[in-house]
Amino acid sequence: MSSLRSLYAKGDDPGLRTNMGVDYAIHYKIPTDSKERAEAEAAFTQLVEGLTKVGLATEVRDGHDSSLLIFVKVASGQYLTTQIYRERVQDWLYGVRAAAPDKNVAAAFEAEPISDAERLRLVYLLITRPKNDGGAGITPGSGQWSHVASIFPLHDHGFNKQWIKEWSSKYVLTDKDLHNIRDRFGEKVAFYFAFLQSYFNFLVALAGFGFGAWLILGRYTFLYAVVNSVWTVVFFEWWKKKEVDLAVQWGVRGVSKIQLPRNDFKWDHEAADPVTGEAVKVYSPINRFKTQLLQIPFAVGCLVVLGAVYLFCLSVEIFISQIYNGPFKTYLVFTPTLILTGVLPMLSTILGNFAEKLTEAENYETQDAHDAALVQKLFFINFITSYTPLFLTAFVYMPFGNLLAPYLDIFRVTAEKISTKGAITTQGFEINKARLKNQIVYFTVTAQLVNFALETIVPIVKRKATQQVEKMTSKEAAAADPEGEHAFLERVRHEASLATYDVTGDLREMAVQFGYLSLFSCIWPLAPLSFLINNWVELRSDAMKIAVSSQRPIPWRADSIGPWLNSLGFLSWLGSIVSSAIVFLFNNENEGPGGEPWEIKLWGLLLSILLSEHIYLALQFTVRYVLSQIESPGLQKEKAERFAMRRRMLKESLGEEVTQKPIPPTVQSGEKITRKALEEEAREMSVKGSSPEQAFWHRQQGMDETVQVGRHIFSQVSLTAPCPRERC
Amino acid sequence: MSSLRSLYAKGDDPGLRTNMGVDYAIHYKIPTDSKERAEAEAAFTQLVEGLTKVGLATEVRDGHDSSLLIFVKVASGQYLTTQIYRERVQDWLYGVRAAAPDKNVAAAFEAEPISDAERLRLVYLLITRPKNDGGAGITPGSGQWSHVASIFPLHDHGFNKQWIKEWSSKYVLTDKDLHNIRDRFGEKVAFYFAFLQSYFNFLVALAGFGFGAWLILGRYTFLYAVVNSVWTVVFFEWWKKKEVDLAVQWGVRGVSKIQLPRNDFKWDHEAADPVTGEAVKVYSPINRFKTQLLQIPFAVGCLVVLGAVYLFCLSVEIFISQIYNGPFKTYLVFTPTLILTGVLPMLSTILGNFAEKLTEAENYETQDAHDAALVQKLFFINFITSYTPLFLTAFVYMPFGNLLAPYLDIFRVTAEKISTKGAITTQGFEINKARLKNQIVYFTVTAQLVNFALETIVPIVKRKATQQVEKMTSKEAAAADPEGEHAFLERVRHEASLATYDVTGDLREMAVQFGYLSLFSCIWPLAPLSFLINNWVELRSDAMKIAVSSQRPIPWRADSIGPWLNSLGFLSWLGSIVSSAIVFLFNNENEGPGGEPWEIKLWGLLLSILLSEHIYLALQFTVRYVLSQIESPGLQKEKAERFAMRRRMLKESLGEEVTQKPIPPTVQSGEKITRKALEEEAREMSVKGSSPEQAFWHRQQGMDETVQVGRHIFSQVSLTAPCPRERC
Repeated sequence: MSSLRSLYAKGDDPGLRTNMGVDYAIHYKIPTDSKERAEAEAAFTQLVEGLTKVGLATEVRDGHDSSLLIFVKVASGQYLTTQIYRERVQDWLYGVRAAAPDKNVAAAFEAEPISDAERLRLVYLLITRPKNDGGAGITPGSGQWSHVASIFPLHDHGFNKQWIKEWSSKYVLTDKDLHNIRDRFGEKVAFYFAFLQSYFNFLVALAGFGFGAWLILGRYTFLYAVVNSVWTVVFFEWWKKKEVDLAVQWGVRGVSKIQLPRNDFKWDHEAADPVTGEAVKVYSPINRFKTQLLQIPFAVGCLVVLGAVYLFCLSVEIFISQIYNGPFKTYLVFTPTLILTGVLPMLSTILGNFAEKLTEAENYETQDAHDAALVQKLFFINFITSYTPLFLTAFVYMPFGNLLAPYLDIFRVTAEKISTKGAITTQGFEINKARLKNQIVYFTVTAQLVNFALETIVPIVKRKATQQVEKMTSKEAAAADPEGEHAFLERVRHEASLATYDVTGDLREMAVQFGYLSLFSCIWPLAPLSFLINNWVELRSDAMKIAVSSQRPIPWRADSIGPWLNSLGFLSWLGSIVSSAIVFLFNNENEGPGGEPWEIKLWGLLLSILLSEHIYLALQFTVRYVLSQIESPGLQKEKAERFAMRRRMLKESLGEEVTQKPIPPTVQSGEKITRKALEEEAREMSVKGSSPEQAFWHRQQGMDETVQVGRHIFSQVSLTAPCPRERC
Repeated sequence: MSSLRSLYAKGDDPGLRTNMGVDYAIHYKIPTDSKERAEAEAAFTQLVEGLTKVGLATEVRDGHDSSLLIFVKVASGQYLTTQIYRERVQDWLYGVRAAAPDKNVAAAFEAEPISDAERLRLVYLLITRPKNDGGAGITPGSGQWSHVASIFPLHDHGFNKQWIKEWSSKYVLTDKDLHNIRDRFGEKVAFYFAFLQSYFNFLVALAGFGFGAWLILGRYTFLYAVVNSVWTVVFFEWWKKKEVDLAVQWGVRGVSKIQLPRNDFKWDHEAADPVTGEAVKVYSPINRFKTQLLQIPFAVGCLVVLGAVYLFCLSVEIFISQIYNGPFKTYLVFTPTLILTGVLPMLSTILGNFAEKLTEAENYETQDAHDAALVQKLFFINFITSYTPLFLTAFVYMPFGNLLAPYLDIFRVTAEKISTKGAITTQGFEINKARLKNQIVYFTVTAQLVNFALETIVPIVKRKATQQVEKMTSKEAAAADPEGEHAFLERVRHEASLATYDVTGDLREMAVQFGYLSLFSCIWPLAPLSFLINNWVELRSDAMKIAVSSQRPIPWRADSIGPWLNSLGFLSWLGSIVSSAIVFLFNNENEGPGGEPWEIKLWGLLLSILLSEHIYLALQFTVRYVLSQIESPGLQKEKAERFAMRRRMLKESLGEEVTQKPIPPTVQSGEKITRKALEEEAREMSVKGSSPEQAFWHRQQGMDETVQVGRHIFSQVSLTAPCPRERC
């Protein structure tokens, strides 16, 4: 926590005390080439003009290192409230809010004050939205705005300090904590923390059971696999419910439907929106579907390329560590690790770029749809890179190692050809039964630690170094800052140099972890405990990452953790298959000498997979049903609001009386049959003409007559003779 | 079609020409016991009073056979429209309608006239709803109303005649036809016909393919099984979409949420409804869940009892037809059929009653939930009775017959003990390879024919017979009918004697048929063709059944085919497993002498099931995705209505201006820096006090100054020296 100390220990660093009312800072690079500079200067002028036109006030300061800092805030409070009120009404129009905001604007903001996130999102939209949509159309780094390095809101360090301090001294985050995050950093970030906290809470139970299982049952037990599977189902279904509930509480349910249009969207033709009637740009879904079909060869390609790399490395590793016995063995053992370390990131990047191109070609209307499609592909790549080593060990190396070993002779032959001396010797191959466990320990403990280091410690070191350099190089400029602003500007310059926070990456990490848990934790029941500890730290270090080592994120809205939800569901289901297969293959083995795993009965394996999967599906069905029976407070609140809203509108527009029950007309008793009444009726009949229908309904005048006639018919039905003691 | 002729051939039967404006007829039995009669008479008086109080006009006539006919219509047109308007507003309040009805009542009914179904449903509710809910509280056959035999609307024979005539001369029902059904008989019946027509349309393709497969490929082919599976998925998913679309078009989407409370519901306590705030009766869902758990022993019980009966009959049948060779074989062969015919209906009834009791104990709030729970259980019983014979043949008799045959000796021993002569001889057992095919032919052709006969011809014969009897017995009463009403009353008396139409039974029949198709049609690819023909007739005979041999149904609303939808989904999924297993077991056999089916590799069977199911799931996922991309016209219309409604309300309640874009404040250029302006500013500062924030935003006055200062900073950054041709 050295970075925390460095930033907050002095307590009253004057630069952190105020944000000067600034909403956003725009970091503008000044090129050193004279021709480019002229362009940049022109663009800068247009930038300031553009911002001013959409109602934003600007101030400019020296950003050091050949850059400007343009500070932006909303020019008038009145303008801000009007804009936000309009956004809220829009939300209601699209069904995101159940109730329309109060007609009295002042009362509306009294009831629901403007949060930081709301204001900052609005200002960001004013800066970046296209001009014809009421924004300044400034898109960092592209086209005319290539010199705009970043647009970022300023950290609220007072809040951050409090936040980090609180979280490092409490065990569980409350709904209020999440609410605070939401108000400061937007729903997208808040959903990540809500997920992480829920996941952590559920992990406590599994970690406890896992520890017990490790002590008593050992590894590869059916009991642990079953409990693990139940746990994934319950957690996943519960989270789906929780997510909806949170979205309703935060007033963002259905917000994914009204997300921003994508700038790069290319349309075929314009058509009237079937819902709003406005002209919208349309791209043929059939063309998109055709492009989407390219995902199949893409997936096959990923599988083949990455699978081949892993298979090759596995072969080399087996050969060197278990067959090869020649010189340099100690060093050569690291060859496969070196290959993987060198080749994998490169391949991942290439495939990731390819995925991005493919998603680009699928040409989605909205940023959200685009992101979701991209996340799907990235998940697939991540899936292969994360789990293939374990799949290979469990389903290739362990059962078929003995069969494959002879083929590895090709390496020996190659090696002999290369080495001129005949010094290469080999030893007999024997399956390393601990390999699977060693791997899972590596992935659940070592890799998490390395990852933690990369995520938190490295950026701090990096930042310290840059700060040192900055301090030395920019000393001369300090004098140029206006009076009383130096500390503030230094701080903003520092924030400008930070990385942007990427919540998708953090969610990806959790999804991959959930996969290890669901698919492979039966190999080593301590895995959940390890993850529990990791996630306790993760929750706090991610908070630190946002507060200290990243720019403040743009507070985007979201109504769920997005496409990762599907990934979790998929991993949970796949877990039921993979776990049962692993347990079936290895539970009789216990690393003892007996039982060659490749001699197992195939039908037993298939049967256990089949059973496990169907038990899983039945369980999922049951859990869903049970959870659906439990009322969600958020949804109930929403329904009640909707209902109240409608009732109010109804009364307003239709008047009070329609909500009352209508009074039935009274035909209780016939008119007294007087001579006059009969005459009246006869006259009426002769005027109107008496149809059979009229005649039918005039036979009995009113209730009393009907009863009388009825009684008469009763009396005509012959009674059965009373039959005392005999059968009638 | 003899009944059609009998009813409509004469064309102008005077009794069919008019309904006398009657909405409902109440058939009231007059007991022949004097004490009971007094009670009945009192209840009759209360009945008429009750009806009158809720605004219904009544007329009473002699019903013959010791009964009354009470005719009911709404007393005033004004009252009817007020009530229906209120219902429509209520629908909108609960979200069933997207748009509220027009504020002008006359205009609202102009835009959407009252349909027959709407009026009849309202009147029925007025008659039957509890008194504290604004109805007369008349529940036929229970408590005080035990003498009310039935409450039924009168057939619109003009429409019926036209309907039957049209349908018997056209091949495909259009949306308009369905719309007519909906307007006359309500959405519940209309959904059945819509389903049947859609199913029929889809069957054309499968029947064609099946016929081709039968000609070319023969039986038990993978290709047919795959096509069949694809077909079930596409049909099922398509229907789910169609259903929503129809519900929206018919304005009943979500109507299942506001269904009627169940009369027999017992509550724990009262609580405020979280949505409407009204006090509602609550029953603990945990207690209900506990009762629901009883379904598990119930299901096991059904399975054991029915399974045992079938297994016993199968054994007896095998023994007699294939092992036994003694006297009376020709007759004894029918023993199992006789046992099944005698025992099965009895068992089904007992289990059905048990299911009803169980559902009663589960104590649902609404009639819909109760019906759904009951249907689930009935589906389970039906599933066992319908498919067990085929399951036994395919998975017990065929693969293990040879192994089981020796155990059947027990029958021989028993038989020998009973018969005193030693005349019983046995023959060697050989599996009857055609058994499976014979069975499926029986279920798809013979059983359908028998069923058709039971459903349509028997009721006609029965009715003819009763009519004959009636004519003879009630001749004397004819004279008592008021002038000009005799034909009409005779017709109503006839309708009173008819059965009520049960749409659930018809849906059950179709679900069972769909099951044969999905699970077993790979045994005999002509099955879909047989079903296609059957359903063409079914569609028309069901129309006839409603029009001619049933009372007019109460026009209930519904937004889907209800719980049967789940049954179809289940059967479609199970089909992927069962079909693949059957094809795997029998496709190499072809009834030839080679290949003992019980020698098949178990792992092969399991693998083919596993593969088939996962291909099915992937297929389902894909079809769902593709269908979700296609816009549904109904849903679009609904969204557009909702949006327009909101926009209209917004304008009404908030005024025009909020939907306009706000005009940003202009801070385009700073004031000219004059002596006067500077003085002004200095004074302002001294009055307000200058905070650092104020000072920060006052450094640059307006856009132009910001640009100037920015340019100044640009100019201070040192340019790189131009470096022609060398690296800089």
